Amino acid sequence: MIVILRQNAEQARIDALMASIRAQGVDIHYSQGTTETILGLVGDTTHVDEDWLRASDIVADVRRVSEPYKLANRRFHPEDTHVPVGDTQIGEGRFAVIAGPCSVESESQLLEVAQAVKASGATCLRGGAFKPRTSPYSFQGLENQGLELLREARRVTGLPIVTEIMSETQLDDFADVDVIQVGARNMQNFRLLKELGHCKKPILLKRGLSSTIEELLMSAEYILSGGNENVILCERGIRTFEKMVRNNLDISMVPIIKQKSHLPVIIDPSHAAGIAWMVEPLARTAIAAGADGLMIEVHNNPKCALCDGAQSLDPAQFDRLMQDVRRRVDFEGKALG
Amino acid sequence: MIVILRQNAEQARIDALMASIRAQGVDIHYSQGTTETILGLVGDTTHVDEDWLRASDIVADVRRVSEPYKLANRRFHPEDTHVPVGDTQIGEGRFAVIAGPCSVESESQLLEVAQAVKASGATCLRGGAFKPRTSPYSFQGLENQGLELLREARRVTGLPIVTEIMSETQLDDFADVDVIQVGARNMQNFRLLKELGHCKKPILLKRGLSSTIEELLMSAEYILSGGNENVILCERGIRTFEKMVRNNLDISMVPIIKQKSHLPVIIDPSHAAGIAWMVEPLARTAIAAGADGLMIEVHNNPKCALCDGAQSLDPAQFDRLMQDVRRRVDFEGKALG
Amino acid sequence: MIVILRQNAEQARIDALMASIRAQGVDIHYSQGTTETILGLVGDTTHVDEDWLRASDIVADVRRVSEPYKLANRRFHPEDTHVPVGDTQIGEGRFAVIAGPCSVESESQLLEVAQAVKASGATCLRGGAFKPRTSPYSFQGLENQGLELLREARRVTGLPIVTEIMSETQLDDFADVDVIQVGARNMQNFRLLKELGHCKKPILLKRGLSSTIEELLMSAEYILSGGNENVILCERGIRTFEKMVRNNLDISMVPIIKQKSHLPVIIDPSHAAGIAWMVEPLARTAIAAGADGLMIEVHNNPKCALCDGAQSLDPAQFDRLMQDVRRRVDFEGKALG
Amino acid sequence: MIVILRQNAEQARIDALMASIRAQGVDIHYSQGTTETILGLVGDTTHVDEDWLRASDIVADVRRVSEPYKLANRRFHPEDTHVPVGDTQIGEGRFAVIAGPCSVESESQLLEVAQAVKASGATCLRGGAFKPRTSPYSFQGLENQGLELLREARRVTGLPIVTEIMSETQLDDFADVDVIQVGARNMQNFRLLKELGHCKKPILLKRGLSSTIEELLMSAEYILSGGNENVILCERGIRTFEKMVRNNLDISMVPIIKQKSHLPVIIDPSHAAGIAWMVEPLARTAIAAGADGLMIEVHNNPKCALCDGAQSLDPAQFDRLMQDVRRRVDFEGKALG
Repeated sequence: MIVILRQNAEQARIDALMASIRAQGVDIHYSQGTTETILGLVGDTTHVDEDWLRASDIVADVRRVSEPYKLANRRFHPEDTHVPVGDTQIGEGRFAVIAGPCSVESESQLLEVAQAVKASGATCLRGGAFKPRTSPYSFQGLENQGLELLREARRVTGLPIVTEIMSETQLDDFADVDVIQVGARNMQNFRLLKELGHCKKPILLKRGLSSTIEELLMSAEYILSGGNENVILCERGIRTFEKMVRNNLDISMVPIIKQKSHLPVIIDPSHAAGIAWMVEPLARTAIAAGADGLMIEVHNNPKCALCDGAQSLDPAQFDRLMQDVRRRVDFEGKALG
Repeated sequence: MIVILRQNAEQARIDALMASIRAQGVDIHYSQGTTETILGLVGDTTHVDEDWLRASDIVADVRRVSEPYKLANRRFHPEDTHVPVGDTQIGEGRFAVIAGPCSVESESQLLEVAQAVKASGATCLRGGAFKPRTSPYSFQGLENQGLELLREARRVTGLPIVTEIMSETQLDDFADVDVIQVGARNMQNFRLLKELGHCKKPILLKRGLSSTIEELLMSAEYILSGGNENVILCERGIRTFEKMVRNNLDISMVPIIKQKSHLPVIIDPSHAAGIAWMVEPLARTAIAAGADGLMIEVHNNPKCALCDGAQSLDPAQFDRLMQDVRRRVDFEGKALG
Repeated sequence: MIVILRQNAEQARIDALMASIRAQGVDIHYSQGTTETILGLVGDTTHVDEDWLRASDIVADVRRVSEPYKLANRRFHPEDTHVPVGDTQIGEGRFAVIAGPCSVESESQLLEVAQAVKASGATCLRGGAFKPRTSPYSFQGLENQGLELLREARRVTGLPIVTEIMSETQLDDFADVDVIQVGARNMQNFRLLKELGHCKKPILLKRGLSSTIEELLMSAEYILSGGNENVILCERGIRTFEKMVRNNLDISMVPIIKQKSHLPVIIDPSHAAGIAWMVEPLARTAIAAGADGLMIEVHNNPKCALCDGAQSLDPAQFDRLMQDVRRRVDFEGKALG
Repeated sequence: MIVILRQNAEQARIDALMASIRAQGVDIHYSQGTTETILGLVGDTTHVDEDWLRASDIVADVRRVSEPYKLANRRFHPEDTHVPVGDTQIGEGRFAVIAGPCSVESESQLLEVAQAVKASGATCLRGGAFKPRTSPYSFQGLENQGLELLREARRVTGLPIVTEIMSETQLDDFADVDVIQVGARNMQNFRLLKELGHCKKPILLKRGLSSTIEELLMSAEYILSGGNENVILCERGIRTFEKMVRNNLDISMVPIIKQKSHLPVIIDPSHAAGIAWMVEPLARTAIAAGADGLMIEVHNNPKCALCDGAQSLDPAQFDRLMQDVRRRVDFEGKALG
């Protein structure tokens, strides 16, 4: 961490600031130039607060050199993390395909989709029981009944289930869910993240629409620092100025995460695209980028879906996609599932 | 709402779609052109789901003409809403100044700041007891002890208190808080919004960093549709590409809200600027834009603040700001408080 | 095009507006609802000005249904366009690799790089003679001497040359350049685009940092409407809020262009990434997305490059990249060159 | 400027790098820590290229401490600059109002608007003769005939004229224009900027839609470094994710420019808003923020304007606006004109 002091700062004030910094267990290299004086903070600066430094009127600027996340940082954990899910795992040479409807709507809908995606090679079943919707007038999910139907679909197909939690008050109801999803809008719901750190379940943490990669890793750090190492990151498109696509899939996020962190990362092309025909080309780029999996929306009758029908594949489209996915995963030297 | 059909859509499919739409109590005007066919949906389309329409493969595009929010819409509620707070109100010719520290740190800190801002003319006291922080290693607030100190500061100064809630599980603890703040990161925490709709307390709803104005109004709609009419909107800067300022204060949001909605709107220049010297010029623009108030961070010793010190004014700076604010509020024909 | 009228617009005013629209050779479907009246404009609305419509005080909103570009539109030109370059072409099953230094620095530098990229399989040589630089104090290129060196490198290697034009006054000097590049900052330099429309040379049109895809296609339309059909589009990253990457490669742009337009599209991962190690993973995603080629910066000694050294590959790195590119292009059923 | 070296960089490589830096006339402070080594570059680093430093594989990161612009920098030029325009000036206690039509359409249109805005108190006349339009099918301006009409309007009203240049080839035709405007799309047309640096005319430099404030100041630096000190900056809205406004007026740009630079800065609320009713509230915020002037579109018949009619005021609306502007400029202790 580098602290740039204002020109003409009084020496007594500088000495006092340096003493406060050293009291936090950090060493300082002091460089006095003709136009500016620079303090180089050396050691573990994770706990040194940038805001506190900036508030000093002798400080002109503060620049962090090392990352503010530690447990999510590849520097301190060089090997890839893999997260066990059901009988398989996510990460480390495996390629996961999590497929299913945006929301659970009925027993017949869910079972039909679940059996179809299983037959096509999906490795996990997704389905929303509690739905975060922009409008209070939109369908909000079947709630606990939806969870029950997911459990039934797991019994029938054997697929592990992935579903979204909306509040830490629901943790008991999610006790036997295989992977708990934190949605993009809750990426910085810190009360929820803290509680998820105290369970041992796999957490699928979706990047917020306008969250930086560093913020995503800091949210992962909340879960990791609570003691839960099973975090899977998920990119689902970011908000930009472009209007021809619902969200811009940030494909460069995959190599950046692979360099900065050891956590597995998957891509949700359905939410990024917002439209079914674009799911397949974006899925191809995810595999090529080195992602550890895909999350795909599939509905038995997209045009009657209660939410996100426009971006859902039907089972036949998903089956064709999976044939292509298999070839590509194989090309990359990975194995499905 | 306008539905643009694909070229060459079969008439039988069009008829079926139109029947489904009419079944939702909406009339249709049908325009067949040489290159496209357009359905104009007429009536209350608030409950018609755009996603459902887009999912039909005979639909090329859907454009909403009327706003998806109803209770927050000035069209159906032409008079300005004012929200009673303590002995005063926010909105309708009054100009509120909510001031205080980013976080409650100690009894002496809070009382010192509270008495200073009261003396300078603030109309409400702000202070965070539960703090949403990007890093799990940053100070997270004094929590319930912080709430207790806020109550004490209210007893001493008479100022109504404004503080941030982080989860619907905290509602009982917030029972005697005067204004419950929903932070930018929780603007789309729909579980929380629903519960806040069931209490009658004034809610200060902050716009998310990258939330559109329409999304903000839809989040207000969640609270209003639960039965709580006391919603105050707050702009605190949006996330853009610009790096010289922490967030870009979206000043055009004020006239837009005044046109589209009847709800009062205030500005938080401290969070937008991220740096103390810019608070004053941004506060001036807020008054000129027609905002109903300001939210300002004040700390008795900014350079020792446990959070956001860089953007906090000290009591002397706040007092100078208030002298200028008084002149400007008077110029606009409004009254402080 | 759809025109939504204000509630309570006078019928005489509506009739006058409709007459003006019909005078532009466009038919109107008129839908009167209880809350709004909608005019559906049917026919070729390319020349109808949205601004003119919006300026009418009886108009509430205007929505374009059909695209404002015509010659660049796949709807009116269903077959892929391929652009002849030297003995080969860009588009239609061929995969181009345009490689070379950011800027031409010296004869030995350019020849060394040109021979190396030729040996590794590049299909065109790039190199900047005129450099648009943010700072007036940065190296601005060798200018005409740089063009001369590019011609020499072409003689030696046989590779067609691609280089950036900065003003329409330079067209004579660029007469024997094989592909004229329009840089991101000049994407809306309309004087330049018009002049390029009057020559028959291949034009490589780079997307502006914050230009929408529609704006890019409209800039292509400027060139096409001047009579030059040889336009190649290029994505090089867009400006967003994310700080860990210089620009966010908008990979979804490739499938969108392939759907909306018939023009070939290539990807420049070097400028998007801004850093050499990220070029290779981004290049992989470009091939998987269906792009028609890559543009890659290569320098014989990146750490001494006069510009953009950080993102340049050295010849050995480029050779390794090309081995991977070959395998992937082959996997996609395309041929290099 | 601070250079952070990679861990485990060889000492011989470090020494070589330091020698190259010192050869550029810059001193170095060297700080070796346990986890990183930091070089603090001291002196005039304006000419040191960040890219060159980043390209070294022993460099982990480079951070600029001092600004890359010098002539535009308030640090080296503490007094406000004022730019003489006709008999008056822009900056230093004067408040300019530049008003007129988006484009010059006819003699009667221009004279009618010019006389009206003069009567209402405008200090300069604006009008486009050459129009940069997104579509090649939109009206492109009356070109040289438009310039001639502007000269006539100046003779009739005495108002100095402000009009946009599109290429350096037009400089002769603009020889007697009072203020040459560089449009947002040409902000980084460096050939044009260089040529404008060689004339002595006032240049109104508009910020690009997604240009950072630093990039704007660097473009000003191009003009200043050519020897032309008469640069006026103009903010006209930035491109963000928000859809309810055409561009987001970045009001914080005014205090930032006032702190970082000595150049005058004006606001164009017409282009930011994109709609006439929002011009007035945004104009109020510009005055309150401390801007040196406004640029406002006025048309004698907005609903028949050939461009940007939706955002143009009619003369009566402009006259009401000016009454309010006068009161506010007076309140700020400035004088119109």
